[in-house]
Amino acid sequence: MARVDALILDRMQSDVPVIPKLAEHLIAAGGKRLRPLITVAAARAAGGAVDNAVKLAAAVEFIHTATLLHDDIVDASDLRRGKVAAHLIWGAPSSVLVGDFLFARAFELMVETDRIEALGILSRASAVIAEGEVLQLTRSHDLNLEQDTYLQIIAAKTAELFAAAAEAGAVGADIGGAARQGLRDYGMNLGLAFQLADDALDYGGASEVLGKNAGDDFNEGKATLPLLLAVQRTKGREDAFWERTITKGERDEADFARARELIVGTGALSATIDTAYDYADKAKAALSSLPESEWREALEKLADFAVSRAA
Amino acid sequence: MARVDALILDRMQSDVPVIPKLAEHLIAAGGKRLRPLITVAAARAAGGAVDNAVKLAAAVEFIHTATLLHDDIVDASDLRRGKVAAHLIWGAPSSVLVGDFLFARAFELMVETDRIEALGILSRASAVIAEGEVLQLTRSHDLNLEQDTYLQIIAAKTAELFAAAAEAGAVGADIGGAARQGLRDYGMNLGLAFQLADDALDYGGASEVLGKNAGDDFNEGKATLPLLLAVQRTKGREDAFWERTITKGERDEADFARARELIVGTGALSATIDTAYDYADKAKAALSSLPESEWREALEKLADFAVSRAA
Repeated sequence: MARVDALILDRMQSDVPVIPKLAEHLIAAGGKRLRPLITVAAARAAGGAVDNAVKLAAAVEFIHTATLLHDDIVDASDLRRGKVAAHLIWGAPSSVLVGDFLFARAFELMVETDRIEALGILSRASAVIAEGEVLQLTRSHDLNLEQDTYLQIIAAKTAELFAAAAEAGAVGADIGGAARQGLRDYGMNLGLAFQLADDALDYGGASEVLGKNAGDDFNEGKATLPLLLAVQRTKGREDAFWERTITKGERDEADFARARELIVGTGALSATIDTAYDYADKAKAALSSLPESEWREALEKLADFAVSRAA
Repeated sequence: MARVDALILDRMQSDVPVIPKLAEHLIAAGGKRLRPLITVAAARAAGGAVDNAVKLAAAVEFIHTATLLHDDIVDASDLRRGKVAAHLIWGAPSSVLVGDFLFARAFELMVETDRIEALGILSRASAVIAEGEVLQLTRSHDLNLEQDTYLQIIAAKTAELFAAAAEAGAVGADIGGAARQGLRDYGMNLGLAFQLADDALDYGGASEVLGKNAGDDFNEGKATLPLLLAVQRTKGREDAFWERTITKGERDEADFARARELIVGTGALSATIDTAYDYADKAKAALSSLPESEWREALEKLADFAVSRAA
């Protein structure tokens, strides 16, 4: 992973000064480097060489960073990774263009691996992510969103990149067959577990300790699974409350506490966490075609960690 | 070119309805399809097969369309190709995300050609374009911009895609050596000629007939070559006028006519058109390593057309 970090730092450089400054603001802010870790660990767990995986891992993190930059504009977010969002410092135009730059650099890195299949996986994933974001944008305040549609949205906007990260790791190491498919399935299920746990954390998680970003989804009127389940379970009783706070977007300071009370009280929060656990179990099961190794174990632990944060 | 158009229409489809709607708004609005034409004609002129060129041509048009969508947000433009800009109809978030979608689809198309060199050319071009856009964004109101820096900006933001379009056409047809390099040089010089002619047209061109978009650059306070030359040539006389209208951005309705008078009167306009002609000549000369053919002739005519629009 130190090699991945060094490569990320090297390839975000540009003669145009605002580009590395803006990229560093976001990339140096940390983040968990979860996706590149998956790419490297997938190559290792499949028994492959790691040189291409390092490049593909950096590419995956660049794609992720580009989508974060563009998402912050789409959501008009104030904060990202605990720091002021880049578009509020450098302006939305710079955020759009630096996102485009990082996206292009991601493909340059992939080209260096000379693995056209990896390019196929990650270009398709990038199109799917954009589709998922647009779908969420057009349905985000819809209280009647079905659970299946919601899962379809997060599969596209979040889990697809986890799946592509794992599969690209295998392909970069010239691993195919059941191992490649197993790693892809692992990534997809891990991504779903990860996003559902995030959704639960936004309402305090099972421990009900509010993190620094808690309430963001509610305050943006986002219809995530905990909220959708609570809306269903309070039908006929709380319709006016949800209509006002989510559909119309008229919220006051006390509303988040009330929403949380309903989400916890109806069991919507624990149902979300249970669903996340189910996907984490599926992720681990998908690794069964791989030989036992410390890398396979690392991937299994990652699946547990993805959900335990919220439990 | 009919095959290119059919492929463009096919690949901009998506199950998420707003994506094809927004893409169609822009793509159906026409545009000259100049860049994809260059890719196909380059493959033909080099004596190569055209199947890959058709896919690469569609990819080039998708990259171009994606940059237009993002540019309209960056410049806060009202019009694009004579129609209301997409972000004013569907909102900036959709324009950002549909741009990302088209960019990803471009790379999917390139992957289908199984020519990793073409992916290298177009991913590098995409990074260079984004760098050029950021550079222009940070220097666009700078009255002291040197001519060389201005040419560097338009080489990156405009000409690089023309160069990549021509080179990718050659590579897709498995043509290398002097023909490939000649086609790349052709594209680069054509792109410079094209952008300089556009810059001249924004002030009415040599015929001084104002087109429908005339005045856009001035009204955005953009330091293009006609303006930069006029500023130099009126030093000590008109500094206050340029300072107010460009640096401070305080313009009234009469200012564009005054700016045009200075740009025409000082010969800045004709100097810009002369420079465009020089690049068009260089573009044609770069084709000398190719055998004479109707396709080479078509590329030569394109170079003439690029400038004659403004003359």
